[in-house]
Amino acid sequence: MLNVLPKLCSFKDFGVIYRLMVQFRFCLEKETAEGRVGSLETPHGKALTPLFMPVGSHGSVKALSPRELEELCVEVVLANAYHLYLRPGVEVIRDLGGLHAFMGWKGPILTDSGGYQIFSLCKLVRLMPEGVEFRSHLDGSLHLFTPERAIEVQEALGADIIMSLDVCLPYPSEKGRVQEAVELTTRWARRGKGARKGKAALFGIVQGGVFLDLRRKSAEALMEIGFDGYALGGLSVGEEKRQTWEVVEFTCGLLPQDQPRYLMGMGTPEDLVEGVRRGVDMFDCVLPTRCARTGELFTPWGKMNIKNARYARDPDPIDPGCDCYTCRHFSRAYLRHLFMARELLAYYLNTIHNLHYYLKLMREIRRALQEDRFEEFRREFYRLREEGATEVAP
Amino acid sequence: MLNVLPKLCSFKDFGVIYRLMVQFRFCLEKETAEGRVGSLETPHGKALTPLFMPVGSHGSVKALSPRELEELCVEVVLANAYHLYLRPGVEVIRDLGGLHAFMGWKGPILTDSGGYQIFSLCKLVRLMPEGVEFRSHLDGSLHLFTPERAIEVQEALGADIIMSLDVCLPYPSEKGRVQEAVELTTRWARRGKGARKGKAALFGIVQGGVFLDLRRKSAEALMEIGFDGYALGGLSVGEEKRQTWEVVEFTCGLLPQDQPRYLMGMGTPEDLVEGVRRGVDMFDCVLPTRCARTGELFTPWGKMNIKNARYARDPDPIDPGCDCYTCRHFSRAYLRHLFMARELLAYYLNTIHNLHYYLKLMREIRRALQEDRFEEFRREFYRLREEGATEVAP
Repeated sequence: MLNVLPKLCSFKDFGVIYRLMVQFRFCLEKETAEGRVGSLETPHGKALTPLFMPVGSHGSVKALSPRELEELCVEVVLANAYHLYLRPGVEVIRDLGGLHAFMGWKGPILTDSGGYQIFSLCKLVRLMPEGVEFRSHLDGSLHLFTPERAIEVQEALGADIIMSLDVCLPYPSEKGRVQEAVELTTRWARRGKGARKGKAALFGIVQGGVFLDLRRKSAEALMEIGFDGYALGGLSVGEEKRQTWEVVEFTCGLLPQDQPRYLMGMGTPEDLVEGVRRGVDMFDCVLPTRCARTGELFTPWGKMNIKNARYARDPDPIDPGCDCYTCRHFSRAYLRHLFMARELLAYYLNTIHNLHYYLKLMREIRRALQEDRFEEFRREFYRLREEGATEVAP
Repeated sequence: MLNVLPKLCSFKDFGVIYRLMVQFRFCLEKETAEGRVGSLETPHGKALTPLFMPVGSHGSVKALSPRELEELCVEVVLANAYHLYLRPGVEVIRDLGGLHAFMGWKGPILTDSGGYQIFSLCKLVRLMPEGVEFRSHLDGSLHLFTPERAIEVQEALGADIIMSLDVCLPYPSEKGRVQEAVELTTRWARRGKGARKGKAALFGIVQGGVFLDLRRKSAEALMEIGFDGYALGGLSVGEEKRQTWEVVEFTCGLLPQDQPRYLMGMGTPEDLVEGVRRGVDMFDCVLPTRCARTGELFTPWGKMNIKNARYARDPDPIDPGCDCYTCRHFSRAYLRHLFMARELLAYYLNTIHNLHYYLKLMREIRRALQEDRFEEFRREFYRLREEGATEVAP
């Protein structure tokens, strides 16, 4: 029977059949007080958690092509419904076979609903019960995003994991306003779920600012509606770090054990370590790719600013212990030269290194959790950074 | 004996020994009225002629890393002594093991002396018998380049092929001034040759503007000094195309048959075809990499401007007949989107395509010459472009 199959179906058919068969699934492998280890299964492949997802807002992880993402063992790419809806337009992408085909990325894609972008990038945002009216940050054109439209857009893009449309408030906001935002986010989450037509996993987004009772209300209401996973939104927007972690720890304690938890948009290396410790499974952040473009390179002993004159004649790689393409082939002196000369190659090589650092950090975190030595790992992680603070690179 | 060698020398040693042993050599395989086929041997490897050399002025072919250059089968990279001398400084590169090690490129490197850049980019250029004084286009600092210094800089960079310092005049210039420039260029070429310490191949640069008698004087004087190859400089600076080709054809007719001829800085696809036909062996041009960054993509039927709205929903690759990474994976619609969104990936993918087009064109030219059907190839080359002029892409 197995010998006959290849004659009936091409490999491409197999891919299509596989995607039709596979539903989203989260498998929690291990949970301790130090963090959780698990895996996500999606129509476009598996991903291990805790997971870091590089950001490709406009359908491209800035400066890299899909083959570098594959080489780096990127598992899930994050794209943005708001940006792609405005440009090139969701119909364009749908007609060209969906976002995977459009951007040439075969792995899983998570799309953000666009809530955060609308509230942070747009002018003249009008919040209404039915949705949010906004003017494009590109050309000022007027648009209405409803929770239904947000789902429709993300389904048209063909994402594997999609997000409910949420209301994002600035920090600080009065408790009354935060409560209203939570209630609207809940109603929108319910409407979004009702509008879902495809099989993409749908995540609800817990809001509530720094108010634990509102976070509880939000989480419980979303859990009652029932989602494939739960995200923590509205954090790291100006509140104290102590408050951030209090909310993360408190909220993760409320969420279902057998479903993934996604801390949206937060991701210094320290954030990953601290988030995992509080039960977070998924992260995304522009930091590694953005810092690559400003010449800030991640190392175990802290950030290295490659613009610094001290690197002008430095023959070492960014991190002698790193095995990324950049560190295997190029000196700090060359990378500094490229950056100072504004050569495009600087952004490519820096991005490869920074993403490699993040993905390796996540692999190390996973292994440490599996081997029950996360606290030891964490101590070493901070020890190296403290040493680095003396500004003496090894 | 052969079995013993690997125990005595590592592969790295072999590389060093090979480079010490191999001298520059040009081997003319075939010459007809339609063009010449041959090869260059250098300490860093072989290259087939007619040859196109991508430009990496600052020690990086813009937007690409060495592995893309290898994938594209780039044979020789051109770098610029002027740019690297100013930034990061030639001592920095020398101390880091030379330009090959600095930029991670294992193949041959040709460096331009900097004459053209000094005369075209700098302010307050003071031409003197001993050399040229100029102010850096970066910070206004004062520098003196002599023919000896130009050789010293290029040898310190470790280039395989280096160029004499020449005097470049604007077009049009009076014949008297051109004659003086030719005479100074000749004297500088002699001094440069005398200053050579290493084994890099040294090319003389024929000047003389559009004056055939001065071109003859320049060529004959340089041949009397004796160089490893001869370049044609000061062309495509504003003169009529008819004049350019008259000079190229005339000058190539004077140069030694058994040495390579290099037409500097000229390189539309038509230029390559017409140059080969007049006996040119080597070309360099920023066009494929620069156009990549302005969204102009080369195809057999002419340049495609990817910004054009007609490509917004176009599912085809840039050129359905092209097998570069870009064309194998991405649609015109995606490339247009990346370009409009100013995504860095646009420059990377466009550069890969444009360089692939150029290198493939050169391979086709070589094969056509070898198979005695260059005129047929040339007719087809122009036929496709004329069809393309109707603005209907296939």
